[in-house]
Amino acid sequence: MTDMPASDPAAPVRAPVARPAELAAFLAARMCHDFISPASAIVSGLDLLDDPSAQDMREEAMGLIATSARKLADLLQFSRVAFGASASAETFDVRELEKLAQGVFAHMRARLEWAVEPPAVNKPAARALLNLAQMAGAALPTGGTARIRAVQEAGAIAIAAEATGPRARLRHKRAGNRQKVRDFFSAGEAAGGRPRRE
Amino acid sequence: MTDMPASDPAAPVRAPVARPAELAAFLAARMCHDFISPASAIVSGLDLLDDPSAQDMREEAMGLIATSARKLADLLQFSRVAFGASASAETFDVRELEKLAQGVFAHMRARLEWAVEPPAVNKPAARALLNLAQMAGAALPTGGTARIRAVQEAGAIAIAAEATGPRARLRHKRAGNRQKVRDFFSAGEAAGGRPRRE
Repeated sequence: MTDMPASDPAAPVRAPVARPAELAAFLAARMCHDFISPASAIVSGLDLLDDPSAQDMREEAMGLIATSARKLADLLQFSRVAFGASASAETFDVRELEKLAQGVFAHMRARLEWAVEPPAVNKPAARALLNLAQMAGAALPTGGTARIRAVQEAGAIAIAAEATGPRARLRHKRAGNRQKVRDFFSAGEAAGGRPRRE
Repeated sequence: MTDMPASDPAAPVRAPVARPAELAAFLAARMCHDFISPASAIVSGLDLLDDPSAQDMREEAMGLIATSARKLADLLQFSRVAFGASASAETFDVRELEKLAQGVFAHMRARLEWAVEPPAVNKPAARALLNLAQMAGAALPTGGTARIRAVQEAGAIAIAAEATGPRARLRHKRAGNRQKVRDFFSAGEAAGGRPRRE
């Protein structure tokens, strides 16, 4: 849940981020982590094609390469807007954003329900929508429904992310970050957005 | 050229970086930009394989896929250390760093000459070495020699990057960033490191 611009002084305050250079390094590490898995799968597929003793697995190898390449391309298009400065566009069509998010959900078990009302949003809101969508999807490792809602009121946008599924959980490799994610969502909960475990 | 730790008050001062969130966004955008090109080439290769009217180009398509996948994998391994927080390793074997840098140069026209004396360096020095190596290689679009030197003296490391070739030039899409790169190298020049145009 996030409000922008923070016109209300009672709006939830986020936990402070890491130091500037650390933030960039963490983001870079996370992107590499996300991309290395499909890239390695493509290389494995090519190795399999080259292996004379695995000629009966050519079809599986080509399938692995194709699936991984699509996943990588979808992730890159998504990341360019979710994390990068993206073009110079200051306004984003929410249908384009949904397309980017659905591209990433195509490789996840969870289903994305996109209920974003404003037809266009600014860059900070666009990034928040995509980031929250990906977090909600990642919170559903065995599937479920990630619902992203956004409404516009008096120049501010309210965004809520809800993850509903049998094993919904916020997870992160680092306990400290997990706590930060929880703080982030707890702050949002007071304002109406929360991840839900069923 | 960079000294770390900056034990000498007369050590070159770098230009201030962009705002924290901007730095992360610029880095993310740059990484996506670097990765999208080989990823798209893989997808194009797969499309070509699927095209019944291009069956005579199957070999070229497989070659394109294989080359691009190797480039992507090399770039990812490099970026994980050059930009990411990397593992929790605080000390880096310079032979490993050279391997990462040579991996990236394998897909560039320039040749990398690695003359790094200390056998191991800390994380900031490791990142500086890789970043300067990539910048020196990118400064040689038509080929040449990028030379990375580093010596250790009294607990500080001095790093110099030199790009020598027929069309050596520091380039960047944004004029402001090009100026920053020049400032960075000019600061280094006083201390012995400089890009050279021949």
